Amino acid sequence: MLSRNQVKHLHSLKQKKFREIYRQFLAEGSKLVTEILDSSFNIISIYALADWLRHNESKLLSKKIPFLEISEGEMERITALSSPSRALAIAEIPIMPVLPAVINDLVLVLDDIKDPGNLGTIIRIADWFGIESVICSENTVDLYNPKTIQATMGSVLRVRVIYANLPEFLSSVDPMIKIYGSFLKGENIYSARLESKGVILIGSESSGISPEIVSKITDNISIPSFVKESGAGDHAESLNASVAAAIICSEFRRRKG
Amino acid sequence: MLSRNQVKHLHSLKQKKFREIYRQFLAEGSKLVTEILDSSFNIISIYALADWLRHNESKLLSKKIPFLEISEGEMERITALSSPSRALAIAEIPIMPVLPAVINDLVLVLDDIKDPGNLGTIIRIADWFGIESVICSENTVDLYNPKTIQATMGSVLRVRVIYANLPEFLSSVDPMIKIYGSFLKGENIYSARLESKGVILIGSESSGISPEIVSKITDNISIPSFVKESGAGDHAESLNASVAAAIICSEFRRRKG
Repeated sequence: MLSRNQVKHLHSLKQKKFREIYRQFLAEGSKLVTEILDSSFNIISIYALADWLRHNESKLLSKKIPFLEISEGEMERITALSSPSRALAIAEIPIMPVLPAVINDLVLVLDDIKDPGNLGTIIRIADWFGIESVICSENTVDLYNPKTIQATMGSVLRVRVIYANLPEFLSSVDPMIKIYGSFLKGENIYSARLESKGVILIGSESSGISPEIVSKITDNISIPSFVKESGAGDHAESLNASVAAAIICSEFRRRKG
Repeated sequence: MLSRNQVKHLHSLKQKKFREIYRQFLAEGSKLVTEILDSSFNIISIYALADWLRHNESKLLSKKIPFLEISEGEMERITALSSPSRALAIAEIPIMPVLPAVINDLVLVLDDIKDPGNLGTIIRIADWFGIESVICSENTVDLYNPKTIQATMGSVLRVRVIYANLPEFLSSVDPMIKIYGSFLKGENIYSARLESKGVILIGSESSGISPEIVSKITDNISIPSFVKESGAGDHAESLNASVAAAIICSEFRRRKG
């Protein structure tokens, strides 16, 4: 049975302040917890339903990971998600990777992405397209927010996510490397020249790319919109940040493929 | 000031059951409410903060739309979103459009999309790429869920969203029209033959395309994943449903552009 202190500690990890104090985060979901078990991440403890524990007991014992069997009701009390799962882990926040010294592939740079779902989805996209590093502005939402972790669907275990001062980082990039920024008015991405290595800047959901880094962009690119066959009226003014990131990464990788 | 009955009615519209009974839905956000005002949608009433009303008063009066000034505290009580906005409208659910009789462009077909954010994002993608019709299976999440409406960012006003029995609809499609389904193993979408008109099937977040409609697919396509430059380990097993829809629509439209 869960103790009062355990419940208090689990709840505290929903807040960034306490994640930073304890250097711990929550990972929820049967699949994600199993993946973390097989990763190099350090697990502090696991709270899970009886069937999940039975299924994973030998691994937990061999890895000497403390675990506690809890009921569905208890899981509902501690979950940070809208629908509780069968397993929840407290894991140690690893030391943040260092910025890439040399850019020899694509790198995604996120400017103040605020929505944890968008950040997680972009990390999953980076993982799919084999992009090793995602560099986030210091005001980007926390990677270890439970909703971000959930949206990465395990990709948080494979992609290097680094928080950095973006103007400084972009100033340090080799001038031979292109810095691509996505704008409503830019060169059509389908016909623009796209290098196989480079920096791709993704702006925030509400205000796009911030003025202090716009000047670092070498190539303005744009995802063209299409007018309806019927030619009827207006159309969407923009795309969701993670959707734009997906289309841009896809187009870069298509050229390389 | 909000009456108890108004609060009760507003809250009831967060539930599909009551949206169906009243044939009304909630639209929130200053920009969305302004767009609805300029659309052919029928607005029942508007609840907004003083500054928003001042800004839009002449339009509200000329269109004879009932409105009520409320405080920020009252908006917090009635909002269906995590962060309350400055304006909220109750609008009439319009009559569902009919299925397209002839397919002369791209049509998106969604099989049991469960997440309102995903549905809304896909409608926004359709709008961006000039796709007029989105056809949803009967088990797809409700279009008029406040989270779906919010995620469409106004595209709900421009895209025709139709709920239908998918096996029946797909059986009725002209055999000359291709039905594309996205799978982990299929023909590489970047090199596959893609027609400028056709049906694009998007499967559910958890279980993909359901068995009873898989047989209707004429072309299996696949978004290739890329192994990291470092060649390190595993990578993402799949993409989010709206991300996959975005990449597929982008690739179809690129060929046409």
